[in-house]
Amino acid sequence: MILYFEDFEVGHRFRSPGITVTEGQIIDFAMRYDPQVFHIDAEAAKTTPYGGLIASGIHTIALTFRAFLMTGALEGSSLGSPGFDELRWLRPVQPGDTLYVVGEVLEKKASSSRQDRGVVRIRYTSYNQRDEEVMTMVGNQIIRRRP
Amino acid sequence: MILYFEDFEVGHRFRSPGITVTEGQIIDFAMRYDPQVFHIDAEAAKTTPYGGLIASGIHTIALTFRAFLMTGALEGSSLGSPGFDELRWLRPVQPGDTLYVVGEVLEKKASSSRQDRGVVRIRYTSYNQRDEEVMTMVGNQIIRRRP
Repeated sequence: MILYFEDFEVGHRFRSPGITVTEGQIIDFAMRYDPQVFHIDAEAAKTTPYGGLIASGIHTIALTFRAFLMTGALEGSSLGSPGFDELRWLRPVQPGDTLYVVGEVLEKKASSSRQDRGVVRIRYTSYNQRDEEVMTMVGNQIIRRRP
Repeated sequence: MILYFEDFEVGHRFRSPGITVTEGQIIDFAMRYDPQVFHIDAEAAKTTPYGGLIASGIHTIALTFRAFLMTGALEGSSLGSPGFDELRWLRPVQPGDTLYVVGEVLEKKASSSRQDRGVVRIRYTSYNQRDEEVMTMVGNQIIRRRP
């Protein structure tokens, strides 16, 4: 079922299924996009303040958004996003962690210039398997109105 | 040469080398992390407002940070980041585009609780091969003080 702009209500919460992130995935992502020592070298990472390998924060953004898409909230109605705000990495994501995300609708605003769409503001909170917050961010999603 | 907290000055600018992003890379990234139609289906993407395949915004974040690391500014001194703010996708990134990033030091602040580090606030602006801005964001980087 496609959710259109009209279907989003302030306060709606969407909870995603989980995604487990392995050591291999952490290193693969970081080798390509964020090859800092605490993301790619399990030995040297022990000497950093993190005490071991942790996922790139950008990897955590990617997993968060992927998990949120699994809720189906944006399926068939998303026209992309103009940006994110207030992105905070609150706890390290470690090999073997399982992440899920809760997206909460903060606000919605019909476009004044384009009749076919509106913007839905969503706070994404990512949790690990101990239900500890690992990341939060606020994103604007452009959503089609019902045709 | 390692740049320590003391070496960063407000107004310093770091310009990265370029990275070319191919259609295959756009689809590979999106299949894993952001499988929306305008990121993975070149045919259906023609019927969206983007008129064709574009890179996931999260892919653009990843490429931006990767390019910035190539400047060496964070080499050996970075202790990670507490977060990003004001992330804006300004123009679509299309297959074949070549991105580079300019990082500008906005502010620096020594940690009051930890003698060995400080926070450097950096505005990242990503450009394509036509020197058009495609993305901006502001990030805080935790940087070691000179030992």
